[in-house]
Amino acid sequence: MKQFDMQFRVRYAETDAMGIVHHAVYPVWFEMGRTEYLREVGIPYREMESRGLQSPVIAIHVRYLKPARYDDLLTLKVRVARYTGVRLTLHYEVYRDDVLLCTGESEHAFLNEGRATAVQRKFEDIHEMLARCVGEA
Amino acid sequence: MKQFDMQFRVRYAETDAMGIVHHAVYPVWFEMGRTEYLREVGIPYREMESRGLQSPVIAIHVRYLKPARYDDLLTLKVRVARYTGVRLTLHYEVYRDDVLLCTGESEHAFLNEGRATAVQRKFEDIHEMLARCVGEA
Amino acid sequence: MKQFDMQFRVRYAETDAMGIVHHAVYPVWFEMGRTEYLREVGIPYREMESRGLQSPVIAIHVRYLKPARYDDLLTLKVRVARYTGVRLTLHYEVYRDDVLLCTGESEHAFLNEGRATAVQRKFEDIHEMLARCVGEA
Amino acid sequence: MKQFDMQFRVRYAETDAMGIVHHAVYPVWFEMGRTEYLREVGIPYREMESRGLQSPVIAIHVRYLKPARYDDLLTLKVRVARYTGVRLTLHYEVYRDDVLLCTGESEHAFLNEGRATAVQRKFEDIHEMLARCVGEA
Repeated sequence: MKQFDMQFRVRYAETDAMGIVHHAVYPVWFEMGRTEYLREVGIPYREMESRGLQSPVIAIHVRYLKPARYDDLLTLKVRVARYTGVRLTLHYEVYRDDVLLCTGESEHAFLNEGRATAVQRKFEDIHEMLARCVGEA
Repeated sequence: MKQFDMQFRVRYAETDAMGIVHHAVYPVWFEMGRTEYLREVGIPYREMESRGLQSPVIAIHVRYLKPARYDDLLTLKVRVARYTGVRLTLHYEVYRDDVLLCTGESEHAFLNEGRATAVQRKFEDIHEMLARCVGEA
Repeated sequence: MKQFDMQFRVRYAETDAMGIVHHAVYPVWFEMGRTEYLREVGIPYREMESRGLQSPVIAIHVRYLKPARYDDLLTLKVRVARYTGVRLTLHYEVYRDDVLLCTGESEHAFLNEGRATAVQRKFEDIHEMLARCVGEA
Repeated sequence: MKQFDMQFRVRYAETDAMGIVHHAVYPVWFEMGRTEYLREVGIPYREMESRGLQSPVIAIHVRYLKPARYDDLLTLKVRVARYTGVRLTLHYEVYRDDVLLCTGESEHAFLNEGRATAVQRKFEDIHEMLARCVGEA
């Protein structure tokens, strides 16, 4: 699966005094999206963590094109942009109907017992799964 | 409809360093639940706001029984506990499977153009809708 | 010290589309206040945790009297309302100048290695400290 | 003033189940920092808004180098990286003592009555203030 789509509603608590969704909320949605994406391709992140593999965020980039508002029904599109075995980059797009509101990327490292790790060495099934996900939709 | 149920997943951002969902997140879920409940009974809160009726929270009470964790699939049950025409009290329960994790209440006033209002006077359809919702499931 | 006061500014991210502080933010401020209060009386909460004593929130009650807005300079007043050795109740008031905006309470249990504990048994210094804090300002 | 420093404590609610500050919290701190920076140079953002000038975030970039934890006393350094009259870029660094934990940038547009505006045209004092802020510390 090269791309994963999920729908969700904007919560009131996610808005700010400009009447729009606060910009710091989008990374939270991205994280929700990658959780569902990983579940879909067969590697629930909670299972990864319980096997000792963590994937902390080392960078995020977000571009805000148009505002989202309370109760909007949005679509989040998630895909794996790059995967090197030691770094993972996910790409995100947020739409309201067919209007693109926001694009973003998150970069991830991999930790095993608190130390940087190559996924391939100890988590071969996860490595193969991620390698298969790379690419355009 | 005397009771509304909705399911959702715990987001990573909603957890804290104790490894469990932070207690301040539950009121955000309650709000998400009442948004969906009101939509279900035919009064989307966004529509209420656009007609000039706001329903600010004037009190919340939350009791935490057991912790929720990242990625838990939870059920939120919402019902109207009391409605007087000038005050509304909603009741909430959060379950993981059949385990009750949390109960809560939110009390609401009604504002029209920034001033306290009796819903019945200007928003009769909403008044009747809310009056019909009161009660046990 | 029977009462602790702290000042802070409202952050933009803490507001919502009504133009006021979102109600779920106040419990976060209460927690910030009790962290500073405990530091002031000599028991930093981080130190409590590192000694194995956790104090999870088991209930909160918040009453919203008047709204707070972005950039308001607020004063939070914290005091210990009750302490029984197994339960702790803190009381909070939020002011803008001399206008009371919000009152609240949080109830806490005590856990040692994940199980309910009487503070007096293993943490006598903390027990005495908390017992001395009880009361009106 | 080419650079503004502010100190603050990490709140418990800002941590996640990895035991560290959640990555989506840093943009909230950046915003807090630019609020204080603008106040310091004489243009409180609330005053800008009340004069009709909004400065929405159009992009953020954050790089996470080392984790922050609950109760850490952090220093946020803010400066204006670029200012063109229609776009503003702020740069941020977060330190614990002399350890750099995080760097970031936020890009801002300017809106007057909801439409893109050149600051110089209607807000000459703000334009001059921002122009003077540009540069290295």
